[in-house]
Parts: sequence; structure tokens; C-alpha cells
Amino acid sequence: MVGIDPGLVATGYGCLERTPSGVAVMDVGVISTPPGELIEIRLSAIHQAVGALLEKHAPSLLAVEDLYTEYRFPRTAILMGHARGVICLAAAQRGITVLAVAPAEVKRMITANGAASKLQVQRGVQAMLGLGELPRPSHVADALSLALTGMSRVSGRVQ
Amino acid sequence: MVGIDPGLVATGYGCLERTPSGVAVMDVGVISTPPGELIEIRLSAIHQAVGALLEKHAPSLLAVEDLYTEYRFPRTAILMGHARGVICLAAAQRGITVLAVAPAEVKRMITANGAASKLQVQRGVQAMLGLGELPRPSHVADALSLALTGMSRVSGRVQ
Repeated sequence: MVGIDPGLVATGYGCLERTPSGVAVMDVGVISTPPGELIEIRLSAIHQAVGALLEKHAPSLLAVEDLYTEYRFPRTAILMGHARGVICLAAAQRGITVLAVAPAEVKRMITANGAASKLQVQRGVQAMLGLGELPRPSHVADALSLALTGMSRVSGRVQ
Repeated sequence: MVGIDPGLVATGYGCLERTPSGVAVMDVGVISTPPGELIEIRLSAIHQAVGALLEKHAPSLLAVEDLYTEYRFPRTAILMGHARGVICLAAAQRGITVLAVAPAEVKRMITANGAASKLQVQRGVQAMLGLGELPRPSHVADALSLALTGMSRVSGRVQ
């Protein structure tokens, strides 16, 4: 399961795999694009990097945040939409299903509280994955929380 | 010059070429995707169709509406962002430059009035291109108005 937190400036990702002893973090990182670059070039860089990530880990599912409409700045929301669009496309081009996960679902799954703070979610992710320290930066923490929630949703349905 | 009016439900396009006698309409149409389909599949269909259009006409420039933030529904704006994102990507993958054109620039160029109505813009496009009837549907009219404005901006800079 790969989780991705889309953004034109910084797209966080985290790849999790179920192992006999639990869930292992296979890969985490941030794809950044320079603000001064043309938007189409930045989108192309994100599409390529996500494509390479999906080739490398060949997940069957990609978890992304559901369409989030509570942005304070509409322009930022639309730009996020551009990034999310090319990420969904990279998944579709490889037959990978996109799981849209709502923020409240993430918070409930990770902390049992649908209104948890960002820090509570980060601590929850740290505990669930047995990490030595808080996952950082926040884009990586968000991506890991999405992947964990995606995993829980799928196994919850399967069981 | 290709003009594109991005939308997840319907993406309008229009391809113009300068000829010795003026500007000729080479191609117009609408790319539609079924609302019931998964978003990643719909984005993939738009990306493919726009890619085929760009292969066919090999324009050097693609005119799209600038990031437009006056949507009444943030969700619609973010979905438009997804479509616009894969369209910009299709251009970048072919080395085609994206011209972002603001709505007011289109209205001024087509009607000499930055606050013109939709119908005034459609009539202006009809007159400028010598069309027998009003360009329809509105997505095609918008795409043609973007392409015309893109052409005018480029030739204005060149002259």
C-alpha cells in the first residue's frame, strides 16, 4: 500500500507492506518541485516521480486524501487538484486502484478520535509503525497515515 | 494553437491555424467522461484524448484558462484542477508550452469589454472566425475564445 499526500510544492509518500511480524515501512520521501518552474513542468516531474515509485513497489492500491474542500485559499486547493490529478493518472496508467480516504477517517483510525490534532496523528503513526521517532516532515507523516488507513479499510473489508 | 476548456465532465477543445486568408478552424470537439466512472479512469481518458489531439495537430502552444478561483463550489474547482493538471501534463510530455489566459483577457480580446457576457463572447468568436452560426456547445466556444486570445497574445508579442 502506497499513501500519497499530494501537493505542487511538496508531495509526501510512504510505502507500507504487511509482513509476518506486522507492517513494515518500505519507503518514504517527499517529491518537491521548484516554485519558479512552469506548472506543466512541475506536474510532469511529479507524474514521473510517482510513476517511478509505483513501478518500484508495484502496490495494488494507492491511498490519497479524499477531495478536500476546506482550504482557506481556493487557488491552493485548485493547485493541489492539479497534483492529485497527475498522481491519480499515474495510478490508472498502471492499473492501480485509488482509495480516497477522508481526513476524519484517518484521524479515527489512527487515534480513535475523528477530531484529533496533527501531532496526535503523528504520534499514532509512530506508535502503530513502531518508529523510533516522530515521522517527519508532516507530508511523510500524512502519507503514512493515509497508507495505514487504506490498509485498515481493505483488511476490514476482507475480514 | 489549440485552446482547451478543462472539465472532468466535459473538456472542450478548438484548434486554430493561421492561413494566408486569416484564421481557420481545424478541429473542435468535446471530450466527455461518464460521471459514474472512477476519477482516475476519467482522468486517464482525458489525458489520452488530449494527447491524441496534440499528436494530430502538433501545436507549439496550448491555451488554457488561467487558474480560476471564482467557482461557487470548491469541489468543482478542485475537480477542474485535476482535469487541468492532466491536460498540462499532456502538453509538457510533448514539449508544448502552456499559455494561461485569464477570463478578463479573453473577454477584452474578443469583445473589447473585460466584463462581456458569455453570449457576447460567443458572438465575437463567431464574427472573428467567420462562422455560419454561434459556436456550440459553450465548452467549444470557450476553447475557441482561449485559442484566439492565445494567438493574439503571441502575435502581439512577436509584432
